[in-house]
Amino acid sequence: MGVAVIGASMTKFGQRDAWIRELLSQAGEECLTDAGVAPDDVEHLYVSNMASGEFEGQTGIMNLLAHDLGVLPAYSERVDQTSSSGGAGIYEAWQSVASGASDMTLLVGGEKMTHKTTGQATDIIASITHPDEYKHGVTLPSFAGMTARHYLERFDAPRESLARVAVKNHRNGVDNPKAQFQTEITMEKALESPIIADPLRLYDFCPITDGSAALMFTTEERAKEITDEYALVSGIGGATDTHVVHERDDPTVMGGVVESSKEAYEMAGLGPEDLDVAELHDMFTILEFLQLEGIGVAEQGTAWELAMDGATAKDGDLPINTSGGLKSKGHPLGASGVAQGVEIYEQLVGEAGPRQVDADTALACNVGGFGNCVITTIMEAAE
Amino acid sequence: MGVAVIGASMTKFGQRDAWIRELLSQAGEECLTDAGVAPDDVEHLYVSNMASGEFEGQTGIMNLLAHDLGVLPAYSERVDQTSSSGGAGIYEAWQSVASGASDMTLLVGGEKMTHKTTGQATDIIASITHPDEYKHGVTLPSFAGMTARHYLERFDAPRESLARVAVKNHRNGVDNPKAQFQTEITMEKALESPIIADPLRLYDFCPITDGSAALMFTTEERAKEITDEYALVSGIGGATDTHVVHERDDPTVMGGVVESSKEAYEMAGLGPEDLDVAELHDMFTILEFLQLEGIGVAEQGTAWELAMDGATAKDGDLPINTSGGLKSKGHPLGASGVAQGVEIYEQLVGEAGPRQVDADTALACNVGGFGNCVITTIMEAAE
Repeated sequence: MGVAVIGASMTKFGQRDAWIRELLSQAGEECLTDAGVAPDDVEHLYVSNMASGEFEGQTGIMNLLAHDLGVLPAYSERVDQTSSSGGAGIYEAWQSVASGASDMTLLVGGEKMTHKTTGQATDIIASITHPDEYKHGVTLPSFAGMTARHYLERFDAPRESLARVAVKNHRNGVDNPKAQFQTEITMEKALESPIIADPLRLYDFCPITDGSAALMFTTEERAKEITDEYALVSGIGGATDTHVVHERDDPTVMGGVVESSKEAYEMAGLGPEDLDVAELHDMFTILEFLQLEGIGVAEQGTAWELAMDGATAKDGDLPINTSGGLKSKGHPLGASGVAQGVEIYEQLVGEAGPRQVDADTALACNVGGFGNCVITTIMEAAE
Repeated sequence: MGVAVIGASMTKFGQRDAWIRELLSQAGEECLTDAGVAPDDVEHLYVSNMASGEFEGQTGIMNLLAHDLGVLPAYSERVDQTSSSGGAGIYEAWQSVASGASDMTLLVGGEKMTHKTTGQATDIIASITHPDEYKHGVTLPSFAGMTARHYLERFDAPRESLARVAVKNHRNGVDNPKAQFQTEITMEKALESPIIADPLRLYDFCPITDGSAALMFTTEERAKEITDEYALVSGIGGATDTHVVHERDDPTVMGGVVESSKEAYEMAGLGPEDLDVAELHDMFTILEFLQLEGIGVAEQGTAWELAMDGATAKDGDLPINTSGGLKSKGHPLGASGVAQGVEIYEQLVGEAGPRQVDADTALACNVGGFGNCVITTIMEAAE
C-alpha cells in the first residue's frame, strides 16, 4: 500500500525554556494543523525519543502526548533507536499504515537536553555505545576523531574538506529559521576553532539541542482526498552494524548506511543517481563523507572531493543538508530523524522557502550511535 | 497477510544475578533455537524495554542485542510503552510482518529491576504517571487502592474476592518453573498480609522482578514451511486512555482495555464468548476484575463473582492467568507482555506442560501505567 506524508512541523531548535512535554505538544499541534487533520482522526501516535527518563525523570511521554493532543483513544508508543530514533519513528509510522493497522499516523520526535551540563549529556549519550568501549572512556566524539584521522591519512584528503562541510551546512542554516545557529562561519573560523578530538575541532561537531519535529502519515488514497500536495515514502530500510565499533572490517565503511540504503533503493526502484536532494546525519563533519559513500553517491575515499568542488552545496549537483544539517540546525536526539523527514518533505512539496531546490526525489539517512543502527528513507513528490 | 508465531522462550523470572544485556541474550538465543531459525534469517529485532537507562545506565540495548545474537544486519529497535512495552512489541512485530517490511521478526522483552531498592524502582515506575499526579505523591499502588475500595463498595463485592485472585494465580504459578514464586498461599495468608494501600495488602501486588521473554514472528506461508505447530495472531489492537487517571468518567472502566479488545475482536471476527484461555495484567488483583469486564467476559461490577465461584480457575469455564500471572510469575516491565504472549502461544500449541488447558483461541491483555495504554492480542491455533 502506498504511504504518504501529508503534513509536517518543527519547533525552533536550540536552548528552549520548555520541557519535553511542551516541545512534543507544540510540534504535534502544528502538524495536525499543517495536515488539516482533526485529533479524532489520528489512529496511531509514535513518539521518537531516546531518553526523557534519563534527561528529565519523566517517562510515559507518548501516553502523555496522546492525552495533551486530544487524540485519545489513539494507540501511542515510544520508539527508541538512540540518535536515529526519529528515523525509526518514520519506519514505524510507515509500517503502521502499510500493514493496515492505522489509516492516520502522527509521528512526533523530540528531546530536551540543554538543562544538563555538557558532561552529563555526554554521559547519557555515551551509554549508547558498547559497555566494553564506553566504560573505558571511549565516547562518540572520540570515535569520530579516530575515524577522521584515518580517513584523511588513508585517502590523502585535505583537512580543509571537513571544514567545508561545516561552512556549507552553516551557510544552509542561515536560511532555516528553525535552526539553532543561523550564522555563517568562515573556513578560518572552522580551522582555528578549539580541538575537541584531534583532528576534529569545535565546528566539526553538532551542538546539544532541545527541539521537536512531526510528520503526518496516511494512505496514498486518503492523501489524495485530503490534499494535492503530499509526498510518498517510496523506499525505506533499516540495518544494524556491529555494536563494538572496533570490530568493523573497515572503519570508513558504515555498514548500516550501505545496507539500509540498499533496501530503500530496491524498494523504490531507484539508485543514487536519481536523488535530487538529501539530508545526511552530520553529527560530525566526517560522517557526511562516510554517508555519501555509503549511499553510493561517491566511491570510497572520494566524498571529500564533492565538498571541495561544491557539488554538495545548495547550488551543486546534489545539495546535501539544505536544512543546515545537524551541524547548524542542532541535534535533539529523538527529533533529528523526524526533522530530516520534515526537510525532504518540504523540499518535495515546494514549501522550503529560501532553502528550496528543484527536487522530485529525496533521501534522508539517520544514524544511531556511531553507525550502530541506521534508517534510510526515500520520499518522492506525488505525481 | 497472516502473521504467525513459530517460537517462544522465557528466562527464569525473579531476582537474577544478570544484567539486562545477559537476560535479553538468553531469551533471544533460546527463542532462535525453539523456532529453529538461524540468526541470519532474522530481519527485524524488537526489544521491549521501558527503562534500561534509568535502571542500569545502559541504552542502545537493541543494537547491543542484535550484535550479541549475531543477527546483523537485522534492523533493531527498542519499543517502550511502560508496563505494556511487551504488548507494544507484539504489535510492532505484527506490523513488521503484515507490512512486508520483515519476513522473520524476533521480539525480546526484558527488564532488570531488583538491584534497585523498592523505593528507587517505585520512583522510576511512578514517572510513568502524569506529572500533575505523581509529583503530589500518587503512585500506581495508591491508584489501585483507591480503585479497589471504590469497586468493593460500589458493587458490594467481598474483600475475599480479591484474595481469591491472588490465591488462584499463586496456585497456577506452582506449575510454572519460570515463575518468581512457585508457592501456594492460603486465603488467610492473603487476607492477613500487611496493608500496602488500603484495602489492598501485600498479596494483592505483583513483585519487582528481573527477567526476559521472546517470541518469533513470520508470515503464515513461511510458518507452514518451517513447522506444523504454530499460532496465528488473528486480532490485535492498542488504545490510550486519559493520562490523568482522575479525569476518567468511571474509575472502574478501563477505556484502553475496552477499545483495544474491541479492535482485536473485530479484526479476529470473534467475541469474548469464543475465548478458551486468557492472560490478564494482574499487576494488582483488582485489575483482573476490571480487565475481565473491559474485554466483555463479565458485566461491569460482576467479575468478582467469577473469582468467587472458580470460573477463572484452571479448571473453570475461562482459565485466567494459567502462567501464574504477574502476581506469581513476576513483572519485569518490558518482559511481561511478551511473557503473556509466550503463555498463550504455548497453550495453543500444546506446550504448556502441567499448565495445559484445552485451547484453540486465547487472549492477552497488557496494561501500561494504570490503564494509560493497553494492547490486546488474540491468537488462534493453526488449523
